[in-house]
Formats: sequence, C-alpha cells, structure tokens
Amino acid sequence: MKNRVITISREFGSGGRTIGKAVADELGIPCYDNEILLEIAQKSGFSEAYVKEAGEYAPGGFLASTFSHPASGPNNTDYLWKMQYQLITELAQQGNCVIVGRCADYILRDKADCLRVFIHADMSFRAERIVKVYGEGEKSPEQRLRDKDKRRAAYHRFYTDMKWGHAQNYDITLNSGTLGIQQCVHIIKSLY
Amino acid sequence: MKNRVITISREFGSGGRTIGKAVADELGIPCYDNEILLEIAQKSGFSEAYVKEAGEYAPGGFLASTFSHPASGPNNTDYLWKMQYQLITELAQQGNCVIVGRCADYILRDKADCLRVFIHADMSFRAERIVKVYGEGEKSPEQRLRDKDKRRAAYHRFYTDMKWGHAQNYDITLNSGTLGIQQCVHIIKSLY
Repeated sequence: MKNRVITISREFGSGGRTIGKAVADELGIPCYDNEILLEIAQKSGFSEAYVKEAGEYAPGGFLASTFSHPASGPNNTDYLWKMQYQLITELAQQGNCVIVGRCADYILRDKADCLRVFIHADMSFRAERIVKVYGEGEKSPEQRLRDKDKRRAAYHRFYTDMKWGHAQNYDITLNSGTLGIQQCVHIIKSLY
Repeated sequence: MKNRVITISREFGSGGRTIGKAVADELGIPCYDNEILLEIAQKSGFSEAYVKEAGEYAPGGFLASTFSHPASGPNNTDYLWKMQYQLITELAQQGNCVIVGRCADYILRDKADCLRVFIHADMSFRAERIVKVYGEGEKSPEQRLRDKDKRRAAYHRFYTDMKWGHAQNYDITLNSGTLGIQQCVHIIKSLY
C-alpha cells in the first residue's frame, strides 16, 4: 500500500505554500517545503540560498555555467536534483504528507498515491500578494512574477519533460485568486 | 448583477457533458449543450451535423474551404461562430445556467459571473469511455481522441487566442479519470 501524498505545484505568489501548510495542519500530516531545501543544503554543503536559486534554474542558466562545465560531467544543478529526488522519495516512503514544489509530482509518479495539485492566480492577485508577503523589491512585482514563472517552467520542463501548468498533468488545478485560499484548502482536504 | 454561469470545457470522452448535466440538475438550473447546436442549425438552415462539425474546425479546415472562399468574405465557420456568440450571450442573460463547450468561457468573460471549469482525463479512461458511450468507430478510440483533441484545441485557439487546457485559463480543472465523475460534480456544485 503506497502512502498518500498531496503534491502542490504553484505559481509564485499564488498562495500555494500557505494552502499546503493549511491542508497539512487540518489533516494532521507533515508539510515539506523549506525543510527540503534545508536538508539538501546541509547534506551538500551548499548554502540554503544557493540551493534555492539552483532549484529554479534549468541547467544552462547562469548559476550552472558559473559553477561547472558540461565537459566535466554533471553540474551542480544536476547534483542537487539527484539529492532532491532521493530526499523526496524518502519522505514519501515515511508516511502520508504534503510536499510543496520541487517537482514532487514527477518524482513520486510511481512511488506514492499522489493527489497532484497546481495552484495559480492572475497577475494582479499575485502582485498584490507578493508585496504583502515578501515586501517591495528592486523590480516591479509583475516583473518578479514573470521572471519566476519563466524559471519555474523551464526548470520543470528540463527535469520532468512535463509542461508546467497544463491541466492534463494534474488531478486538480485551482485559481486561488478567484476561488480564495480558504476554498482551495477546503477542496483539497475533501479530496484526501 | 450578472448571472452566474458555469462554463464547462472538456476533452472528448472525459465525461464533461455528463458532469455538466448532473451539476445543473442538482442545482435546478438549465444546462445548454446540444440545445445550442440545434438552435444554430434551425436559425442558419444548416444541418445539425454540419454545425457540429464546423464547431470543431478552425477556419482553413476542409469544411471552411469547401463551402466558401476567403475573397468572398466571412466563411461559414465565421458565420456560425457569430451566431454561437450571440446565442450564448442571450442564454447567459436569461438566467443562471451551465453551458458545456462552445467557447462559452471566452464569449462570456465580461458578460456573466462565470465559474470556468475544464474537465480532462487520461487517454485510457477516455478510450474506454467513448467505446462505451459512442460505440466502436472505424478508427481506434485513441486515434479518435487525438483527432478530437487537436481540432478542439485549434478551434479554441483560433477564436479565443486562449490556450486550451492551460490551467491559467480556468478557475478549476478536474481530472475526471482519477477523481471520478461524481466527485467532480460534487466539487463544482460546492463552488456555485
């Protein structure tokens, strides 16, 4: 009997992480998000910030080429991907849980009984939210969102060959902007 | 106050029509699907079969070029699209309802308070279902599904410039194969 895992992919600023935490709390199961970054950082010796950045750049991005060269074998991003792959597999083997981001839907496709969720929202909802949650940045919120969206889609595509945000890759996708975060939590919980 | 309309786009064979009818029945509101085809057929004088086919081919397909020529103005598909556009607008003005297919999500984007739903399922679920519902055809069920998917996506893209099946175009997308048709009905109903 495979463990039941809720995987939550999400657009930056859509509240996917908040939704994942709330679902896990209400169901009384763990939610893994930054915990995965921290563990990979500790095991690899890289800083948490570096691991976080690497998890959003497909190989060939500037970080990969700064730290390694194709001719010298797998680059850092590939190495971190492998660690992430192993860690997420182990977490899913430990018990039922929620995993936010990190391509967990792809990694666990044959290893757990997954409910694959994608959370998104339109630009204005997310722009307002990231300023509230993360504060002002150098770039406009819209520019930050476009950059993040592009990176996540490219990273996801590179490692999974799945198109990010295509309904067909998920059991359910929810617009947190129009449905509201609480409604999303309620629906996901009801499907568990 | 705009009327509340549930628009259901769906992959062929995913049970989207069945789900739409069930949601409407349980909510006690009308569901429009083939009714739209019939009305367009009556008003235009074309056969129901022709209207149905035209609604799945983007202009430039063989039907459009058989019946009209670009130099002579709008072709039949464009003409039928305009009728469909007007009819769906009128239906949404009459009261709350469910509308299945026909790009209603796009047509009503500023005219009704829409809950935009997309229903899909994987190939094996749909293949088994279309044989059960529509019987055997000349082509394999998988080939029929691939043809239909392509046509619907092209038609939708041509008239709406929206990418069919992209989560971002909907409030909710549901995989009827993994969640089950009854569960989909329940969730949509709960969001109304």
